[in-house]
Amino acid sequence: MNDSTPVPPATLLARIHGPTDLKALPADQLPALAAEIREEIISVTAANGGHVGPNLGVVELSIALHRVFDSPEDQFVFDVSHQGYVHKLLTGRHGRFFRQLRQSGGASGFLCRGESPHDAFGAGHAGTALSAALGMATARDLRGSHEHVVAVCGDAAFTCGVTMEALNNVVSSTKRLIVILNDNEWSIARNVGAMAKYLNRLSTNPTYNRVHHDLERFFTSLPGGHDMHNMWVKWKRETKDFFVQSSLFEKFGLRYLGPIDGHNLDELVKNLEFARQSDGPILLHVLTKKGRGLQAAIDHPEKFHGASPYNPKNGESRGQSGKTPPNYQDVFGQALVKFARQDPKIVGITGAMPSGTGLGHLAAALPKQFFDVGIAEEHAVLFAAGLATKGIKPVVAIYSTFLQRAYDQIIHDVCLQNLPVTFCMDRAGLSANDGPTHHGLFDLAYLRCVPHAVVMQPKDEDELVDMLHTSIEHKGPAFIRYPRGAGNGVKIKVQPARLTIGQAEVLREGSNIMIWALGPMITEALALAERLEAEQGLSVGVVNARFAKPLDRTLLLSQAACIPLIVTMEDHVVTGGFGSAVIETLQEADCNTAVERIGWPDKFIEHGSSVGILREAYGLSPDAMYQRILTRWRNHRHEDVTADV
Amino acid sequence: MNDSTPVPPATLLARIHGPTDLKALPADQLPALAAEIREEIISVTAANGGHVGPNLGVVELSIALHRVFDSPEDQFVFDVSHQGYVHKLLTGRHGRFFRQLRQSGGASGFLCRGESPHDAFGAGHAGTALSAALGMATARDLRGSHEHVVAVCGDAAFTCGVTMEALNNVVSSTKRLIVILNDNEWSIARNVGAMAKYLNRLSTNPTYNRVHHDLERFFTSLPGGHDMHNMWVKWKRETKDFFVQSSLFEKFGLRYLGPIDGHNLDELVKNLEFARQSDGPILLHVLTKKGRGLQAAIDHPEKFHGASPYNPKNGESRGQSGKTPPNYQDVFGQALVKFARQDPKIVGITGAMPSGTGLGHLAAALPKQFFDVGIAEEHAVLFAAGLATKGIKPVVAIYSTFLQRAYDQIIHDVCLQNLPVTFCMDRAGLSANDGPTHHGLFDLAYLRCVPHAVVMQPKDEDELVDMLHTSIEHKGPAFIRYPRGAGNGVKIKVQPARLTIGQAEVLREGSNIMIWALGPMITEALALAERLEAEQGLSVGVVNARFAKPLDRTLLLSQAACIPLIVTMEDHVVTGGFGSAVIETLQEADCNTAVERIGWPDKFIEHGSSVGILREAYGLSPDAMYQRILTRWRNHRHEDVTADV
Repeated sequence: MNDSTPVPPATLLARIHGPTDLKALPADQLPALAAEIREEIISVTAANGGHVGPNLGVVELSIALHRVFDSPEDQFVFDVSHQGYVHKLLTGRHGRFFRQLRQSGGASGFLCRGESPHDAFGAGHAGTALSAALGMATARDLRGSHEHVVAVCGDAAFTCGVTMEALNNVVSSTKRLIVILNDNEWSIARNVGAMAKYLNRLSTNPTYNRVHHDLERFFTSLPGGHDMHNMWVKWKRETKDFFVQSSLFEKFGLRYLGPIDGHNLDELVKNLEFARQSDGPILLHVLTKKGRGLQAAIDHPEKFHGASPYNPKNGESRGQSGKTPPNYQDVFGQALVKFARQDPKIVGITGAMPSGTGLGHLAAALPKQFFDVGIAEEHAVLFAAGLATKGIKPVVAIYSTFLQRAYDQIIHDVCLQNLPVTFCMDRAGLSANDGPTHHGLFDLAYLRCVPHAVVMQPKDEDELVDMLHTSIEHKGPAFIRYPRGAGNGVKIKVQPARLTIGQAEVLREGSNIMIWALGPMITEALALAERLEAEQGLSVGVVNARFAKPLDRTLLLSQAACIPLIVTMEDHVVTGGFGSAVIETLQEADCNTAVERIGWPDKFIEHGSSVGILREAYGLSPDAMYQRILTRWRNHRHEDVTADV
Repeated sequence: MNDSTPVPPATLLARIHGPTDLKALPADQLPALAAEIREEIISVTAANGGHVGPNLGVVELSIALHRVFDSPEDQFVFDVSHQGYVHKLLTGRHGRFFRQLRQSGGASGFLCRGESPHDAFGAGHAGTALSAALGMATARDLRGSHEHVVAVCGDAAFTCGVTMEALNNVVSSTKRLIVILNDNEWSIARNVGAMAKYLNRLSTNPTYNRVHHDLERFFTSLPGGHDMHNMWVKWKRETKDFFVQSSLFEKFGLRYLGPIDGHNLDELVKNLEFARQSDGPILLHVLTKKGRGLQAAIDHPEKFHGASPYNPKNGESRGQSGKTPPNYQDVFGQALVKFARQDPKIVGITGAMPSGTGLGHLAAALPKQFFDVGIAEEHAVLFAAGLATKGIKPVVAIYSTFLQRAYDQIIHDVCLQNLPVTFCMDRAGLSANDGPTHHGLFDLAYLRCVPHAVVMQPKDEDELVDMLHTSIEHKGPAFIRYPRGAGNGVKIKVQPARLTIGQAEVLREGSNIMIWALGPMITEALALAERLEAEQGLSVGVVNARFAKPLDRTLLLSQAACIPLIVTMEDHVVTGGFGSAVIETLQEADCNTAVERIGWPDKFIEHGSSVGILREAYGLSPDAMYQRILTRWRNHRHEDVTADV
């Protein structure tokens, strides 16, 4: 073979550069393609981590969608869009780009409008697809074009309020919308609530959906069939389509089709073709199996919803080299179990994330004191508020970025009424691989402005336990933020300390510069202080601020009176964050001590291979911070010198 | 008659000091009591304004609730709680306190835990009752007590996502919960969407709900009845209660009872007694007439949802003395009509508030470019995001305080994707009579931290039109905040100006002090500047900041370089607000010019008779601000003098 002869691609997938190539593939090769896609997803997620289970479940569905519709003219809106890997592979993103999934320079773990014209709408939080798709369908109607808009929603999306808000508006907004209900019986954990039970009834009993057809046939088959049929027709009219509008979705004006086997390509294509021709909004109820093709993912659906790197042979997580300290989430979960054993009034609430938040420990140990409300953050917070009015001590564990969903309930129901609810915000700060939809970079700003809110962040996992104890005993709302991943490996005291609200802790004295830091930035601050002392001869102190609100005003002002430069460090945007609380406090005291605020810039931060790489990219590496502090110090000293002259 | 003989109270209402007195009243006197209550509500709201229609609709329902249940042991959670006036009158709050409704020192227009032990849960935003009540019922179960918890929700609450989230969780959380669906077919405007249509079907056709009973009777009455009945039973089993679970609420596991005449006291009491004995969650569908007892309120339900003072004889609004300038909301609404006529891609979106937001003008003029999505702020914003991806230019009009409900969609869907959506936030700043649930005091803080957001506030209604034009043409998300009520009465230009994003406007030069103000505070600033000059001989400038984000950094820094004191003024909490943006900008430039930030303190502000009274109470009266600026100036000058020495 001559060197210039192109080698025919060894795989089917390598030949798919876009939907056109997929459409050209003979139907009988599709199962082989599906198998290749599964293999690729398993191999890439085993190395990089990612949403294994959800993607293995939608291989056939995604293939069928791209066979029947014409992306990017027709548009798919994937809910959460963590199940978009197959779609990415089918739209020209396989190869090196996909193999760097969730790494710097590689594919995002979610859909992203900037990544491909096939990504019609980005997402990362649940429940947004139906609303967004409805907006897109309405835009199409307004401009008079004819493309299709398809919303692909998991069953869990229907536990989100916003999906139900959209459902209420479908019929009044458009006549043409296709909704795929991708029903795998799981949100992140197993689905909860009445909707899940209802969908289960719909899917496990095929007669359930067909009952009105049976009834009609029965009536016409009775002796005196014609009269009976007339009676049936009269009844139907009188009851205003009661029987026809049998399913819940039909009550909302959508035609219901299903259940459909989500792994049978022929059946999928046939039903999608039908939906494509439909002259009204239609919902296809597709049953899929989360993790299909990887036994470990089928056996452990929650673990393999979003997994860290694993061994594809046996599903075991790839251990970090050496022993790592326990994760914040586990320390939180275990501490809560301990407290809740001692006080039955303590309960934990999660929005479909028992494992991610660490509340699984409570679910296992004290199930009666544990509530999983589904992906329903607004309800979670209101439910907690209701509990708190009657002396229960609720602990709501929601990731920082998802708590944005309950902002009005935080202000209007919890803080305004000053109810004692504890909020534990995991994934506060950068969540590197997941990217901007999951970075928890705004919570200090959006909580600090709310009266009655107490907002804190521990320096390590032992202090997290102290803060949890302090918050539960506090007679008002308290918010604890902490980062994703491992703690510092410190020993956890047997008896937690009750912290004084608003009291900071001096970790290191200093007379030239004082660094006020929060959470994981404290470790960075201590290292910087040592280096500035060693290399520059500067006396640099470090304060563990503990509270972003209320700030330790007394300590800050006493330091500011004699120390010329204050530096603040936070794993949060600088706009309106912890550093702003520091400068506000100084301004109110008419104190003009210089402050250098270090945190994330006013930008959405992309996903990256590690927190370190992203810090490097945005001027938050140890070297960059060192230089920044030094420059500010020198400018400041220069000013002093000028003033002296 | 001897002087010491107490005069028997002239009215029934005067004898009701609490639920016990109500229970003691003979049943045949209840209609007279209801009439008195209506009279009182009309008389008080005619004078003070308030939620006339909703309260007139629930007179019998509230009486029946207090006859059947034992408040405060049993607890009522009223959704929004704008319909709580009757409840207030029945729980010892009539007389002077109620007559000062929505005035300083008088009753709040909403329920308020601080106001009475009968107010189990405060509210002001829609859709919170079911979740909160579920929390309370669960708390009762956890502590093993036996009181009843009753959620009273309007039909519009079921267009809110959070109500649906709660509905999904009822059965898994408690076995005992009573839900009253107070169905008056209106949210604030007439209800929209599939849910409203569904409820209408339920209530207008009584056979609808009874159909399975009829069917059962029919089967047993057929020739060969016994066999037929068996067949029926078999069918029922096979279809898993399909017929029994006929209503949407039954699909969610609640027993459905209704429709019930909400003005028939006997029927209400009988059904509530039944619900009281129910051993499972139950929903009572009660039909009420908004505005019953006041013809004008029946004829104009939207106007009399929440009315300003009116003439009870004919329903006419009590005009302000003299001619007042047009309201911001109308200027906005009319300008939008003008722009939308010129560009069919412009559409307006409201969450059930066409009249309050001014979008009613668009609805009337260009109905195809107008969308009322119900009380569904999350969906409103997502729907707009979807529209924006396809070149439509959506303008979302939501009050500042209600926009909190869509915070995650703002960050995650609009700003992260940098989609061109215009947000018009009416009622930004203090909304005096309504109180803390309606003051729009947090929007600058919660929006300023979000990358890509442009946040602005006009100095008058002409600039509002400029900002609307600028925002619609801006290629990213833009937020305009403006206050409740009348503008300044300025003339509106024929052609709006396109403002330069991030450019402030110097209104008055000055060399000692420069005031940076936003919106209505500019008028205050100009008056203060004149007074400081006249009385103190100070040269005080005023800047119309226009943009809270991005701030006019160039202008600010050039001024700060030569002016010793900057004052910021905003109708917003000072924590994290506009003033913080100013000090952040100075800090980043290493500029230590003194800044005095004037705004609302870090407290929830109660309701009051007027903005002026509340400003007075919180140090924001003209005199107080004058003194503050002067004190800061003198301290500052003192420092300078010291430094000079």
